[in-house]
Amino acid sequence: MSSAVITLTTDFGGGSPYVAEMKGVVLSINPHATLIDVTHDIAPQDIRQGAIALADATNRFPPDSIHLAVVDPGVGSDRRIIYARFGRQHYVAPDNGLLDRLAAHSDPDRIVALTNPKYWLPKVSATFHGRDIMAPVVAHLSLGADPADLGAPFCDLVRLDWSEVRIVPGKVTGSVESFDSFGNVITDISESMLDGCPKDESVKICCDDHETFGIFETYADQPEMTLIALVGSNGKLELAIVNENAKAMLGVAVGEPVTVSW
Amino acid sequence: MSSAVITLTTDFGGGSPYVAEMKGVVLSINPHATLIDVTHDIAPQDIRQGAIALADATNRFPPDSIHLAVVDPGVGSDRRIIYARFGRQHYVAPDNGLLDRLAAHSDPDRIVALTNPKYWLPKVSATFHGRDIMAPVVAHLSLGADPADLGAPFCDLVRLDWSEVRIVPGKVTGSVESFDSFGNVITDISESMLDGCPKDESVKICCDDHETFGIFETYADQPEMTLIALVGSNGKLELAIVNENAKAMLGVAVGEPVTVSW
Amino acid sequence: MSSAVITLTTDFGGGSPYVAEMKGVVLSINPHATLIDVTHDIAPQDIRQGAIALADATNRFPPDSIHLAVVDPGVGSDRRIIYARFGRQHYVAPDNGLLDRLAAHSDPDRIVALTNPKYWLPKVSATFHGRDIMAPVVAHLSLGADPADLGAPFCDLVRLDWSEVRIVPGKVTGSVESFDSFGNVITDISESMLDGCPKDESVKICCDDHETFGIFETYADQPEMTLIALVGSNGKLELAIVNENAKAMLGVAVGEPVTVSW
Repeated sequence: MSSAVITLTTDFGGGSPYVAEMKGVVLSINPHATLIDVTHDIAPQDIRQGAIALADATNRFPPDSIHLAVVDPGVGSDRRIIYARFGRQHYVAPDNGLLDRLAAHSDPDRIVALTNPKYWLPKVSATFHGRDIMAPVVAHLSLGADPADLGAPFCDLVRLDWSEVRIVPGKVTGSVESFDSFGNVITDISESMLDGCPKDESVKICCDDHETFGIFETYADQPEMTLIALVGSNGKLELAIVNENAKAMLGVAVGEPVTVSW
Repeated sequence: MSSAVITLTTDFGGGSPYVAEMKGVVLSINPHATLIDVTHDIAPQDIRQGAIALADATNRFPPDSIHLAVVDPGVGSDRRIIYARFGRQHYVAPDNGLLDRLAAHSDPDRIVALTNPKYWLPKVSATFHGRDIMAPVVAHLSLGADPADLGAPFCDLVRLDWSEVRIVPGKVTGSVESFDSFGNVITDISESMLDGCPKDESVKICCDDHETFGIFETYADQPEMTLIALVGSNGKLELAIVNENAKAMLGVAVGEPVTVSW
Repeated sequence: MSSAVITLTTDFGGGSPYVAEMKGVVLSINPHATLIDVTHDIAPQDIRQGAIALADATNRFPPDSIHLAVVDPGVGSDRRIIYARFGRQHYVAPDNGLLDRLAAHSDPDRIVALTNPKYWLPKVSATFHGRDIMAPVVAHLSLGADPADLGAPFCDLVRLDWSEVRIVPGKVTGSVESFDSFGNVITDISESMLDGCPKDESVKICCDDHETFGIFETYADQPEMTLIALVGSNGKLELAIVNENAKAMLGVAVGEPVTVSW
């Protein structure tokens, strides 16, 4: 592992000095690390939102990037902290479901529980393992530490329950998964689940009491203020109101059912 | 072009993982790029605000910096995406007016429409050209790609209409252009437009039904809570309330007329 | 001084292009500097909050890091701008109390008033010395400039008045110092002030009309929604509501007295 790109994903809030404390620890061990923020605006302790952000964004990074993720309501309890490798992307995170959306796409190639204090800060607080355990481990990995030395191998990640997308002939039923900063409503229905679904006006998409017909290519395909469906940049069906904030205007929440029927 | 400083200006919101996706794409092509955020807090699809931020901030960067700007309501339509060079600063952006405030200062030295897919990601989504076209182009430029290879040269940038500052003897009439994070009210009246204007109390500055006399050097020149006018750090006339938030206290909006008379 | 890690702490707001202007100036002088944001979300002109963030976060950085701090309500007045060294950490800031919490831990090893314009931008505005004086000085320091060349040595930092923690047998009285992004209530009572204090339920912690018994190790030690006291990751006593926002639920403000009695 020669690359020194390290990303950070937390629920600390964008302006939190806690993020800087972790970066300081990393740079104290590897001054040449390239530190990139994925987001620090995960809602406090919202493991699901963190899991989605990690799965969507981290696969865009170079092979052998190392991704530090800290959404950690169980800090100081007996929850494990793990290193996991998915293909050529490396993750360090609490084992609380934060890697669940990655694991939904493919099994991890390797999992190690972080039990070897050699790679931690000498003094470990009870409330900030992101800084005291995970950040130094990530820095040592970026310098070439062998994951096998970090602790004991094990097999099963903690997984989360997600409502499953149901697919029957002529109908796919999923739900609202998240919103982006434009207020676009992103669902858990991926493009591959829409196999056989027409794109023209013979397909109807419903969410709460809102409905729209057709699956478009891009926002600019329809006039302003129109509710449209399209497959977004991460391959998921989304609902948008052209040049407006669909989240605010539709008033829907995460988990709201979305149906595609034809 | 040897420098590898790349800046990013978007309306994605500060905590958006979309920014990280673009950075991941850049680093996958040029792992040694230095990535600097100008701002991601441009109001959604507010091309004017993006144009002002670009003109104000990017000229502070080293020669041969590359500036990626994505405020792109027309993504997926037939709007062009362009490379433009102004002096020794390089820009990649949709051609929708985002470079208008730069073009108001000087003509671009070169414009190329991005039409050569050789420099794009292999798979281009319809809704995120910032990630799939602009980020890889910027990364290739930082590695020395020749702008001539990016596509076809052309001449005319899309321009925006702005209310013009009117200058008559003894009176300059402009308008509120933006607010900074302290709530200072920044106008479109630049220092050079105030040629011949006295700085003492014989000059009156009006905005809505607020008025103040004199143009001061700095906030500390007057007592707390005083409304003052001064020429701000980017050379534009601004209205401030000492140690308070003028935007909130004055209740003025972008576009509100501002007059300077003497 | 060989390291090129430079941190930034300001009250400009996370999305402010002013931060980028400072970074552009630094990179124009030292293109190889590593720039790390501590926070830009200090409340406007809140010198105390800035002083706390600097003291808490900057000691995590590698030796010979340089910390640029700009919370500067007196910009353009005759307040000094200084370079100060504490151990192997270097600071450049207005001399207005921003380094007070660092100075509370240890005396600075060296202080220099920035009076030598050789290290400044050629044109210095009256309202943005962070960009025009401090950023270039920091960049030159990162390239090895001798602090002795920056200006005249002097001795006494501006200090702030803080309510003092009172310690009597069986009772420690401090106050609320800050909140973190989870809403945890952080006090000015450090672990060392609790010498002799039991951790079990015989100790009572009070804040406003809220009380809790015992000092725990971590949030996970108690059920959800429980008010608990613990020593946080920066060694200060804090009050938290497990998996909730204590700031919002307790309704306390900075300065509110906190007592620990046993």
